[in-house]
Amino acid sequence: MFSIDRFAETIEKAIASIDYPLHPAGLYAPVRYTLEGGGKRVRQVLLMASAEAFGKEAGEVISQALGIEMFHNFTLLHDDVMDNADVRRGRPTVHRRWNSSAAILSGDAMLTMATQLVAKCPADELEGVLALFNATAMEIYEGQQLDMDFESRDDVTVEEYMEMIRLKTSVLLACACRMGAMLAGADSGACDAMYRYGELLGLAFQLQDDYLDTYGDPALFGKEIGGDIINEKKTWLWITAMSKRQDEMQRILDKKLTDYLKISEIKKIYDELGLPDRSHELIESYASQAVAAIDSVPMGADARAFFTSLAKKSTTRSN
Amino acid sequence: MFSIDRFAETIEKAIASIDYPLHPAGLYAPVRYTLEGGGKRVRQVLLMASAEAFGKEAGEVISQALGIEMFHNFTLLHDDVMDNADVRRGRPTVHRRWNSSAAILSGDAMLTMATQLVAKCPADELEGVLALFNATAMEIYEGQQLDMDFESRDDVTVEEYMEMIRLKTSVLLACACRMGAMLAGADSGACDAMYRYGELLGLAFQLQDDYLDTYGDPALFGKEIGGDIINEKKTWLWITAMSKRQDEMQRILDKKLTDYLKISEIKKIYDELGLPDRSHELIESYASQAVAAIDSVPMGADARAFFTSLAKKSTTRSN
Repeated sequence: MFSIDRFAETIEKAIASIDYPLHPAGLYAPVRYTLEGGGKRVRQVLLMASAEAFGKEAGEVISQALGIEMFHNFTLLHDDVMDNADVRRGRPTVHRRWNSSAAILSGDAMLTMATQLVAKCPADELEGVLALFNATAMEIYEGQQLDMDFESRDDVTVEEYMEMIRLKTSVLLACACRMGAMLAGADSGACDAMYRYGELLGLAFQLQDDYLDTYGDPALFGKEIGGDIINEKKTWLWITAMSKRQDEMQRILDKKLTDYLKISEIKKIYDELGLPDRSHELIESYASQAVAAIDSVPMGADARAFFTSLAKKSTTRSN
Repeated sequence: MFSIDRFAETIEKAIASIDYPLHPAGLYAPVRYTLEGGGKRVRQVLLMASAEAFGKEAGEVISQALGIEMFHNFTLLHDDVMDNADVRRGRPTVHRRWNSSAAILSGDAMLTMATQLVAKCPADELEGVLALFNATAMEIYEGQQLDMDFESRDDVTVEEYMEMIRLKTSVLLACACRMGAMLAGADSGACDAMYRYGELLGLAFQLQDDYLDTYGDPALFGKEIGGDIINEKKTWLWITAMSKRQDEMQRILDKKLTDYLKISEIKKIYDELGLPDRSHELIESYASQAVAAIDSVPMGADARAFFTSLAKKSTTRSN
C-alpha cells in the first residue's frame, strides 16, 4: 500500500538511526543537527515510492533515499552561509549556532556522506546511480550560481527564472524519481518518464513555494511572509509584474518604504494584474503535466494514485 | 622510465585540457583559476608512479590523478575561506578575488567534479576506488576539524598533532598511492604497503613544511616565513618547545611583541632546544620508514629508485 505516512516513518527511523562517528564532535554535531531539523522529506518519499512503483520494497532503497536527503540538506546548509540566513526550519542556522567554518566543513562532510550513502547499491547499478547523482549535483550548483547571478541583474526573463528553478530545485526531485525506478529495474522509458514527472513536480513545487512566500498563511507557512518582496527576489511574480508595470514598481522601490508597506504596495500590483490566479494556473498546469508524463508508464493503480495525489498536493499545500 | 618531469608534463597537459562548461561562468571560472594556480602536484605524481610501478601506464590513470588533484584543490579553496587567507600560491585566494559565496559553491562543484573524475575507471574497480576516495575525504575533514579545534586548546600533545596531520595531509598521499596500485591490479599486500608509504611520506612532507615555515629561505619557500609562529599554530616545533619551556614561551607571548621580534624570540627558544636538528631527525626517520614500508613489495628497480628519491627529496626540499 502506497502511504506517505509509511514512507515518512521509514525515513524518520532511518535518519534517527544514522551512526555518526563521535569524534571530532565539531564535525558531526552540525550534520546531525541539520538532518534532524525536519523538512518535508519529499525527495526521499519520491525515491521510495518510485522504487515501489516498479516492484522494489522501499526499505531496499533507504540508503539512496537517505543519501538524496543528506545531499539536499548539505545544499541548504551551504546556501544559508551564502545567503547569510539566520533561521532554517524555525531554528538558528548552523553558521549562527556554530560558525561559518563549521557550516562549510560539515557541509563538505555531508556531500561526501551523501555520496557514500547513494553508492551503497548493488555493484551493477553503481555506475549509473553515481553518474546520475553527480550530474544532478552539478546542475544544482549551476542553479544556485544562476540564482546568485540574478541578484545583480535587472533583465531576468521568466524563461531564465524557470530554468534556474529547474536546475536549483527540480532536478533533485527528478533524480530521486529516476533513481528509485532505476534501482527497481524499470526500463529506460519508465525511468525517463519518472524523471520528467519529478522535474515538472519540482517546478510546481517551487512556484507554489514562491506563491506562499507572498500569499501564504503566516501561521501555516512557517516562515515570515513577504521575504521575497523585501529582498526583491526575482521570482515568477516579481518578473511578471516588472514586465507589465516596471515604472510603477520602480516608483514603489524608490520610496524606500518600510517592509510592511513595501510588501503591501507590491502585492497590490500583483493583485491588480491577477497574478495569484495566473500563478496558480501555471502551478496546476505543471502538476497536470507531471501526471501526464507518467500516463503511459505501466504501474499499479495505487502507485499512480499516489503520484497523482502528490502532484495535486503540490498545488494546494499551505506549508 | 620513471621521471617526475614526464609525470608532471602529463599532468599539466591534462589540467590544461579540462573542458569546463562555459555557463554559468561564475561557477567554473574559480575552478579553473584554482586548478591552474600550480602547486607541486605531488599527489598526482604519486598516483601515476604507483600505477606504473605495477604495470599500468600513467596515461591510463590520468582521470583519477586529476580527480585527486581536484579534490586537494577543493580542500585548499574551502580551507582558505575558513582561515580567511588572502594569498594562495602568490595570487589572491578565490574568496578575495571573487567572494566567499563563489568560493564555497565552486569548492562544492570541485568536490563533485573530483568524484566524477575518480569514478572514470573500469566498472569492476569502481566500488573499491570510490570507497577509498570517500573514506579518505572523510578523514581529511576530520583532520581539518581537529586543526580548527587545536586553535582554542592549550594542551595539544605531539601525538595528537601527528594524528591531525596524518588525517589532514597524509591520507590523501596514501590514497593516491593505493589508488594507483589498485588500478594497476596490484595485490592487497602491495596496496597496503603503498598506502603506508604515502602515509609516512605525508608525515615527512608536512613536518618539512612546518620546518620551512620557520626556517625556510624566504626567496625559495614562496610564502612569508614565520607565519606559524605569528599565528601561534600548534606545530611540532611549537608543542615541543611548549612542553620544555612553557613559562618562557608564555612570557614572550605576554609581551605582545611585533611579528619580527616574536618570531625571533620564539625561534631562539627552538634553537636553544636544538629543535631544527631534532625535527630533521624525525623527518628523516619518517622518510626512511616510508621507503622501508615498500621494501618487500616486488617492483622494478627504477620504480623503487623513484619512490626512494621522492622520500629523500621530502627531507631536503626548500619549497
